[in-house]
Amino acid sequence: MYPDRAFFDRLAEAAKAETLPRFRTGLSVDNKFQSGFDPVTEGDRAAETAIRALVMEHYPDHGILGEEHENIGLDRDLLWVIDPIDGTRAFISGVPVWGTLIGLREKGRAIMGMMDQPFTGERYFADGKASWYKGPDGERQLATRKCETLSDAILFTTSPHIFGADLARYMKVQDRVRLFRYGCDCYAYALLAAGHIDLVIENSLKPYDVGALIPLVEQAGGYFTTWDGGRPEEGGHVIAAGSKAVHEAALALLNA
Amino acid sequence: MYPDRAFFDRLAEAAKAETLPRFRTGLSVDNKFQSGFDPVTEGDRAAETAIRALVMEHYPDHGILGEEHENIGLDRDLLWVIDPIDGTRAFISGVPVWGTLIGLREKGRAIMGMMDQPFTGERYFADGKASWYKGPDGERQLATRKCETLSDAILFTTSPHIFGADLARYMKVQDRVRLFRYGCDCYAYALLAAGHIDLVIENSLKPYDVGALIPLVEQAGGYFTTWDGGRPEEGGHVIAAGSKAVHEAALALLNA
Repeated sequence: MYPDRAFFDRLAEAAKAETLPRFRTGLSVDNKFQSGFDPVTEGDRAAETAIRALVMEHYPDHGILGEEHENIGLDRDLLWVIDPIDGTRAFISGVPVWGTLIGLREKGRAIMGMMDQPFTGERYFADGKASWYKGPDGERQLATRKCETLSDAILFTTSPHIFGADLARYMKVQDRVRLFRYGCDCYAYALLAAGHIDLVIENSLKPYDVGALIPLVEQAGGYFTTWDGGRPEEGGHVIAAGSKAVHEAALALLNA
Repeated sequence: MYPDRAFFDRLAEAAKAETLPRFRTGLSVDNKFQSGFDPVTEGDRAAETAIRALVMEHYPDHGILGEEHENIGLDRDLLWVIDPIDGTRAFISGVPVWGTLIGLREKGRAIMGMMDQPFTGERYFADGKASWYKGPDGERQLATRKCETLSDAILFTTSPHIFGADLARYMKVQDRVRLFRYGCDCYAYALLAAGHIDLVIENSLKPYDVGALIPLVEQAGGYFTTWDGGRPEEGGHVIAAGSKAVHEAALALLNA
């Protein structure tokens, strides 16, 4: 049995109770890895714990792949893919473009997903067939923008620093677009699903970074693949576009 | 006579009536300059018109320096400094980190200022003595964070592309901080005044980009100067810091 929107809402509310009270407070931040800066907040851990508890109570036969805790049943048909706070740097800096990502995969394919931004009160949800938005400016079904050429497109990425040795490939696209912007994490994919921007290109993503976002984009009419055009569920080098034309043009440049 | 907070609120509300209905719609965007991409929305123009009308009605002897329309009485003692939509790229991309900036200068010195973000419902205000916040998470007086060393600091800038020939100077600071982030325009200064981040470094700013933000930062206990340590009212190369220690350390590197 598939979960419904009400259950996703419950998960998002449970996470919000752990994240929002810790947003914009002088919270403790520790480093996940010894090198580099990768903060994990108490809220991150507590929110994932809260989501897991509800999933295990209501869907004990489902698997869980999360960022913060041990995975459960990765080989099961239905697998929850959870990132309690995507955009931890935004979170600790006070910028409300982080989100709680809750996705559901069936036999390896991302089929449902929610992105919740508790501070702005925006919630994006893909129900298996369509994508939806609810926020301070109302509720509506989402549809991506059908931008026809790269030169008209708005491109987002988290930072040029994420590309490493592949920066030159990324730059071939950035150099062609109308406008590019850095620093939006999961929020960029929600804006793409909602038809405000046209293209997101990233690197080094994990499965829990994309699990909830793939259905949001695809069920709003967009395209979400790896840089070689394959399925994006495992993350890595990914590209999301609102239109087939922009997706194809960007893929061609990335692989030129 | 100085305006009070209620009057600033009226100005922000008048601007909001022109900006918010145009946010996240497929609005027309035209290019302010023939080269490059510098969108100006209808909302930008209409909001400045609305602000100017109220100022001219209630303070006919004040001057007005705005982004969109002709300046009035730049030599008058009290001068309004207005950027109706700071962060037009954020605005047209659907990211709620743009803001309406309304500042007041007295004899060249920025003394009062407001930054309003209508979508999130956040309003930041400097009344001449202190800085204040009102938002979905309540109301409070603002105080900057007293970060003691650059290695603990969070640094924001709009984009590394704004630095041009001075990129190497900026990078000396970026290389030393705990975390840096791109793409927040005026919102970064509000986060700094609120104690969430520690440092903002930018280039090529105009007087209307900083007029409202200088009092916000200074009256919250922060430091806001040019890169050579002078008054920042005319824009250009500017640096804002929450603490004297971080301000001095960053200035030293910028000028090393």
